[in-house]
Amino acid sequence: MISASEDIETFLRQHFAKRGGETRSLSPQLVEAMAYSLFSGGKRFRPNLCLQAAMAFGGQAQEAIPYAAAIELIHTYSLIHDDLPSMDNDDIRRGKPTNHKIFGEALALLAGDALLTEAFYIIAQSYSSRAQLSGPLVLCLSSAAGMSGMVGGQAMDMSLGAPLHSIEGALLTHRGKTAALIAAALEGAAVITQLNTSQIEVARCLGESLGIAFQVRDDLLDREMGSANSVLSYWSEGETNAYLDDLLKDAQEMVQTLPPGSEELLTFFSYNRERQI
Amino acid sequence: MISASEDIETFLRQHFAKRGGETRSLSPQLVEAMAYSLFSGGKRFRPNLCLQAAMAFGGQAQEAIPYAAAIELIHTYSLIHDDLPSMDNDDIRRGKPTNHKIFGEALALLAGDALLTEAFYIIAQSYSSRAQLSGPLVLCLSSAAGMSGMVGGQAMDMSLGAPLHSIEGALLTHRGKTAALIAAALEGAAVITQLNTSQIEVARCLGESLGIAFQVRDDLLDREMGSANSVLSYWSEGETNAYLDDLLKDAQEMVQTLPPGSEELLTFFSYNRERQI
Repeated sequence: MISASEDIETFLRQHFAKRGGETRSLSPQLVEAMAYSLFSGGKRFRPNLCLQAAMAFGGQAQEAIPYAAAIELIHTYSLIHDDLPSMDNDDIRRGKPTNHKIFGEALALLAGDALLTEAFYIIAQSYSSRAQLSGPLVLCLSSAAGMSGMVGGQAMDMSLGAPLHSIEGALLTHRGKTAALIAAALEGAAVITQLNTSQIEVARCLGESLGIAFQVRDDLLDREMGSANSVLSYWSEGETNAYLDDLLKDAQEMVQTLPPGSEELLTFFSYNRERQI
Repeated sequence: MISASEDIETFLRQHFAKRGGETRSLSPQLVEAMAYSLFSGGKRFRPNLCLQAAMAFGGQAQEAIPYAAAIELIHTYSLIHDDLPSMDNDDIRRGKPTNHKIFGEALALLAGDALLTEAFYIIAQSYSSRAQLSGPLVLCLSSAAGMSGMVGGQAMDMSLGAPLHSIEGALLTHRGKTAALIAAALEGAAVITQLNTSQIEVARCLGESLGIAFQVRDDLLDREMGSANSVLSYWSEGETNAYLDDLLKDAQEMVQTLPPGSEELLTFFSYNRERQI
């Protein structure tokens, strides 16, 4: 797996230098709070996946960078808000104090709001000369990040929804909370590479499978924690691994309908299968 | 002033019926929390202004409805987050319990996040067949709502920024916190009506003047509260009213460079000057 994270870092650093300058007159602390979480050692899994997908689909990684960066902003905001005392009340993230432990709850909340908003600003600004891309990319990311995607899944995960207390409920939560944004990485890459409509939908489904596999692997790694929405509340480890096999089999079929080279993306499934963190 | 609020209500109700259906399987409570604040008797000042502007500029109000609705979603999310205990800690909004008093802090936070995200979904979806509009409208709204606009102003207002303890500081806060979104109503209307680039900028400035006038009028109405960011911390009532006169004079000049009929928008300045709530 080639890492394209340097390109992402460069884009994010340059973008924030510019936008931070525009905002500093209002609140330098806001800019600092946003940057604290955005540059706190995240693995950049989602943006890297997006760039790898754009290349696998036969496109240019370069063109996908702003969209990939926007996904990372959404991911970062969701972590800041998730860590707040009224949510998971976490003090430590990636080995460092969480955003609100450093900047206070009010500023952490606003930093999250600003990162979420900035994701769409980045897309609209970066693709302004390619009008046929900006609308579909905003649609793709807002659909994945919002009420029927990530935020909906978070509400369900916090038992603020209607938990089904079943494997279906656990998988539905995983689909919203985790898989939607990973699916948006592949769907957006397909949009940018101008694949046809049915291929774009296959790319989204492939991303959703990978996202669910990702969260199911987390369930295996966190098996001691025993969350109600873990698939291990309903399945044995053997059943869970068999499900991961099924997801990979589906993915192997899906890549057949995508451009040649797309099978490269299957390495994300094997990487996920092996990872220990 | 003609009210177009029925069209806005109809759009919002229909949109939520559809999207709520898509989300209900994840979390019916999330949908309920979003709807609670969105349909809680807001004046719809910003969306109405947007539709009036589209008509004043010679366009169709109909075309501006989705964008106007998106602005109202942004406004609504900002109120939910502002009311949270870590921010203003308000129990009552528009004569009803605030969102978190009904749904709890976690769900109120998520409802705000989802409304913010949905604003961009609405724009991307509603203008999908007019690619030349969706990108600029997302840019306009995200720029106004985010780090260099509303959220930046909020951070500054909460003294999370670098308050200047001066009339300039107070006006800068007003510009971000209140005027940016009102400016986006007029700027977006100008984009939708396809005015030329310099006219779009004049429309934005006109909206910014109106937004500042709006917040300065609030300062006059709330004069007993004595906020550090009230212009009345630095100006007498006479000076403040003279400033409102200046803003109107500037506005009268600005509308001359906009299409005939745009002077109709000056009625918002006189309405603001007289309002008691």
